[in-house]
This record gives sequence, C-alpha cells and structure tokens, in this order.
Amino acid sequence: MASKNLLLLAGDGIGPEAMAEVKKLIAAMNAKLGSGFVTDEGLVGGCAYDAHGAAISDADMEKAMAADAVLFGAVGGPKWDKVPYEVRPEAGLLRLRKDMELFANLRPAICYPALAASSSLKQEVVEGLDILIVRELTGGVYFGEPKQIIDLGNGQKRGIDTQVYDTFEIERISGVAFELARTRKNHVTSMEKRNVMKSGVLWNEVVSQTHKARYADVKLDHMLADAGGMQLVRWPKQFDVIVTDNLFGDMLSDIAAMLTGSIGMLPSASLGAPDVKTKKRKALYEPVHGSAPDIAGQGIANPIAMIASFAMCLRYSFGMVAEADKLEGAIAAVLDQGLRTKDIMSEGMTEVGTVEMGDAIIAKF
Amino acid sequence: MASKNLLLLAGDGIGPEAMAEVKKLIAAMNAKLGSGFVTDEGLVGGCAYDAHGAAISDADMEKAMAADAVLFGAVGGPKWDKVPYEVRPEAGLLRLRKDMELFANLRPAICYPALAASSSLKQEVVEGLDILIVRELTGGVYFGEPKQIIDLGNGQKRGIDTQVYDTFEIERISGVAFELARTRKNHVTSMEKRNVMKSGVLWNEVVSQTHKARYADVKLDHMLADAGGMQLVRWPKQFDVIVTDNLFGDMLSDIAAMLTGSIGMLPSASLGAPDVKTKKRKALYEPVHGSAPDIAGQGIANPIAMIASFAMCLRYSFGMVAEADKLEGAIAAVLDQGLRTKDIMSEGMTEVGTVEMGDAIIAKF
Ligand SMILES: CC(C)[C@H](C(=O)O)[C@@H](O)C(=O)O
Ligand SMILES: CC(C)[C@H](C(=O)O)[C@@H](O)C(=O)O
Repeated sequence: MASKNLLLLAGDGIGPEAMAEVKKLIAAMNAKLGSGFVTDEGLVGGCAYDAHGAAISDADMEKAMAADAVLFGAVGGPKWDKVPYEVRPEAGLLRLRKDMELFANLRPAICYPALAASSSLKQEVVEGLDILIVRELTGGVYFGEPKQIIDLGNGQKRGIDTQVYDTFEIERISGVAFELARTRKNHVTSMEKRNVMKSGVLWNEVVSQTHKARYADVKLDHMLADAGGMQLVRWPKQFDVIVTDNLFGDMLSDIAAMLTGSIGMLPSASLGAPDVKTKKRKALYEPVHGSAPDIAGQGIANPIAMIASFAMCLRYSFGMVAEADKLEGAIAAVLDQGLRTKDIMSEGMTEVGTVEMGDAIIAKF
Repeated sequence: MASKNLLLLAGDGIGPEAMAEVKKLIAAMNAKLGSGFVTDEGLVGGCAYDAHGAAISDADMEKAMAADAVLFGAVGGPKWDKVPYEVRPEAGLLRLRKDMELFANLRPAICYPALAASSSLKQEVVEGLDILIVRELTGGVYFGEPKQIIDLGNGQKRGIDTQVYDTFEIERISGVAFELARTRKNHVTSMEKRNVMKSGVLWNEVVSQTHKARYADVKLDHMLADAGGMQLVRWPKQFDVIVTDNLFGDMLSDIAAMLTGSIGMLPSASLGAPDVKTKKRKALYEPVHGSAPDIAGQGIANPIAMIASFAMCLRYSFGMVAEADKLEGAIAAVLDQGLRTKDIMSEGMTEVGTVEMGDAIIAKF
C-alpha cells in the first residue's frame, strides 16, 4: 500500500477547532475502513512565531516537504499584527506554497442547494452554481523581486512590488485549467489586465498558444479581470473554469466564494507538478476562510470547509474518489437535514457547534 | 465670468452616441440659462489611432491640458485588438490621466431606487446603497517601471510590471478620501494587501499617519483588499468612502458598480491637485461603462452614465451645485417615470432609445 503520511498544520484562530474535526474523521476512517493514514503535526503562523520566532520552523518545513499531503487550517490574528513583516503569520503559508512549489490553487465555488437562499445574491443567480477557479500560486506580485520599502529621505518612502510571469509558469497553470475543464463543462475563461499590464499581455498570449497546441477541444474565452469581476457578480453561471494569476485569483476567488453564501464551507487544494518518477504531486489543502480570531475558542466555528478540504485531499492526493464523493455527500446530507453552524444559521434550522457538526458529518459518512 | 472651456473626447463604440446627448444638454443650458460653456472636440482611442496612428494626438493632448474640464466617452473595440501595445485605445486614456496628473478617481456607486430590483443582489442588500470609491489613478502597477516583456530565449519570455507607491502619493489620495468623507457619513475604509505587498504596508502606514495628523475626526478602518471585495458583495452598505490603489480600485469599483444594477448609469470624476494660484483642478469626467462595441451605432445605448458624468463636472469643476443636483434629479425623475433603455429594461417599463432618454432628461432639467 502506498504511504499516506499527512502533516496537519492547524495554525491559529479557528484553525485548531476545525482541524480537530478532521482528526476525528481520519481516526474513524483508519478504524472502520483501515484507511491507514499516518498523521504528524506542526506549527504555522502566529503560534509558530510564538514558539520559534518564525512563521514556520525549518523542521516543520521539512516535514511538509516529506509528507504525502499537508492539511492547513488558518493563520493570523490581531495578536500578531505588529510582528515584523518577515515573520508575520502569512509568511508561513507563503513559504509552504513557494518551497513546495504549489503552483496550482484549485478553488471550487459551489452553491450548496441548502444554502442558496443565504447568499446576498438572488437565489436564481447562484442556485446550482459550480465554478472552479484555478489560481496561479507561486508567481506574480506575491514573490517577484524587488519587493521592498526604500527610504527616500525627507519623510518620503517608496513601496515596491514586482509582478513577474515567465512563459513556463503560465503554460503549466493553463494546462491544469484545461485538463480540469475536460472533466467538467469543457470551458475555460482566462482573466488578466492585458490592456494595462505587460504580464497580462504575455499571460493572454501563452494561454492562447497552450490552447491551440494542446487543448483546442476546450472552449476558451479571455476576459479583462475587472470585467471578469463584474461578470462574476452579474451572472456567475456563465463560467466553468476560470484561470488567472496569483493576485487576481486572490480577489476573484474570494468574491466567487462569497457569492455562494457558503464562505465557511469552501475548500481549496494547492498542487505541485507531478514528480517525474513517482507521478506524485506535493499538495496542501486549506479552507478558503481565514482564522476568524473573533470567534476562535468558542466552539462555534464551521468545520465544513476544513472537512471539504480533506475531501479534496482524498480525491487529488490519494485517488480515493469514492470516499471523497461520500464525504461530500455527507456534508450535503447534514445540511439538508437542517444542521447549521452559527455563520450559516437561518430560520427554522437547527443551530449546532463545531463538534456536533463534525460528529454529524462523520456519522453520515 | 470664469472660463468654461470643455473638451469633448467621445472616443469609440457607444461613446459618440452618449456624448451627443450631453452636447444637446450643454446647448440647452447655454441657450436657456446662459451657462456660457464653450466646447471643443478631439479624438481618443481607436478613432484617434485610425486618424493619427496614436491613441491620442499631441494636439488633442494640449487641448486637454488647456481645457477647464474634459468629458470622455469610452475607448476600444475588437477592431483595434491587434494594434501595437503602445498605441492601443486604452493608451489614450492612460496618457490623459498621467499627463494631466489626475490622481484622484471618484467613483460613486449608488443604487437608483427605481433600479434596486434589477441588481443581481437581493433588493435589501443594495436598496439605498450610496458608496464612493476613491481610487488612486496615476501610480501603482499602471505606470511603474520596469514594465516590459523580455525574451529569455528557448521560447521563454518574461512579463514584468512594477507596483510603486511613494509616501506623497498615498498622502494626497487619502486626503481626498478623508475630505470627501466629511461631506458624507464621515467613514473611510482603506484597502490594500499589506500581508503580501510592501506597497500595501506603506499604504497602510501612510493612510494611518494622514488620519492621525489631519483627519482624526473621521472614522478609519483598514481592510485587506480580498476581504474588502467579499464584504462589498456580502453587505455593501457597511461602507461610506473606500480608498484604494489603482489596480485594486479598478477591480473593486467595477464590482461596486455592478452591485447597484446600474452599471450603465454610473459616472466618474478624475481630478488633479488644485493649482496653487488659481485653485483650479484639472479634471476629466467619464462613465464607468466601456465602449460596448456590440451595441454601438444602434441608438440603444444608455446615455445616463455620460450625463451623470457631466453632472459631476458641474459640481466639481464649476461649483454649479444647484445645477448638478437638478440634473441628477432629472435622471431620477425619468427613471421614476418608467423610462428605460434596453440595458435596464424590465417588465411594465417603457423602452426608449439613446436620443429619447437624453431628450426626456433635458426636458425634466
Ligand atoms: C493569507 C494570505 C497570504 C492569502 C493570500 O493572499 O494568498 C489568502 O488571502 C488566500 O487567499 O489564501
Ligand atoms: C480602460 C482601462 C485602461 C481602464 C483601467 O483599467 O483603468 C478601465 O478599466 C477603467 O477602470 O477606467
């Protein structure tokens, strides 16, 4: 049997509470199905800074590199708002993405039928919504150099960030988008700002070339990122797969998530390239929501995004498609049953805490 | 009487049709009220490229620099999709912004009561919405250098854009936001990505300093731009004035505009610094919508955004506050009356063309 080593990085805020539900689930799968998961744990974000003075220690980074998959909770909180830039909580996540070369961030925005009414958008606009944002995750303005603040004297400073994309980076992320589109509605929309950015001009060109050379069977559209944001709000169902750069992907995927009314429920997968020999991809799975420090420790956090992230892990890292489907089905079932955590509570439903929600999903699984 | 020289740059697509309605309005104001506007015209965008091989000629640029205000329609269309980057239609608009130093872009997102139902958002989420996005317009990734595509050989290219902000740029745009907030609900939300971008760290710092030094009476919040985008979709009424950089402003203002269901109706103003002697600001007014080449020339375009942009011109460039109020009232009145262009048509309303809509507004004015 292939190894199933998981590194759990619960992080800060509601991260540990949400992760606790996944731990129970893993234990149940090992006990009942003999799934054979082996877990280890580490620190990332503010808690890592408190322990080691870094947003992730080298030792935990090594564990992450060696694991078959990493499950990541959330990082950050007001406690660490004033720590130096280099060791801020987010730096741990960014180092994981960069060192593990997780260039492909998959963010499904699906609208759970049971929650269609809780979106701020009209029900008919979001009901049945199922789009996938494929965000480039190791390039662009997140990592380009120079990235610095220069003191110009006279009380003036200059803040600089650099957006950089090379052909191969655009090629590989668009390849991922086209491949995934083939398993869905076969439609990719690429978004950039080619009318203002040279990296956008190159992005547009390389996506078109990749399409022509290898994926001409997939429908491809190009949209300016600002128009794309508008179209997401106007009629999101026009999209199937959206492929875009790191910064636009950050903005657009959060907006897409919010449309569904299910922000506490949405998972993501960050994948590396398949290893030439083993074909295995490095991978990290994390909820789209943040650390929500305001509700941390109260037992009211929604664990569904974290559990759904583990479902993506089953699917993409371990090929356990049946189990992934079953787990996603269990989530839908408890929602249909009327169970709601506080963030998605509505009239006539039953409000439950983090642990009860986790238990209910595990019971249906 | 102070001079009232207007340069009209109608541009491409529906620009000329929308501008024609403003021309009629100006003629009516001159004839009936003796307003004394003197107009001149020029070319910008694709039509300028066709005529001069540039997105705006030096001669028209000089006219713009000399005018008391510029009214701008829209630029671009598929006809010019393949022209060289340097002379693409947008380059004309970007040159106007840069050479006129129009650093402050004011984009109100208001929801016309008559249109609240036509938003893709729930009526209660957008009804009565009135927010103002103050976007920095002459800095950031739009103009930073290096901005280029480098050939790396081996079929690899590198696209580079540079985001640059200096203290003084952040100071002056936040000053505009705080000043305007004082005339509204006295609340500013500043948005950046300080957790990833050094320019965001500086942005946050300078906005806070400016607030402390000169505007401590205004309520100030900071939000990460991705979270801000989510909050705009979730509950936009939490905002009053949003101040943000050029690229985030591009994305966020388009999204805010779309929320209102009134994208064809929203104006914008781009202002320079007041001249030390004359106190006059250079200014350009333009609709938020684009050139809509698909419906150009059919007489169905909505002229309201262009007319509302002229109302902003009356207000900000000529201090004609009563006239601006009256013009905005006339727009609301024809909507209440049930007149609709095709883009905002709904059941039970009366569909009219561009010219009829313009005539109806002028008649109410
Ligand atoms: C926490 C932060 C660095 C991160 C990002 O900007 O990528 C987050 O917003 C995300 O989308 O995963
Ligand atoms: C036309 C384009 C260059 C422009 C921009 O990106 O600023 C437009 O989208 C806008 O928002 O005014």
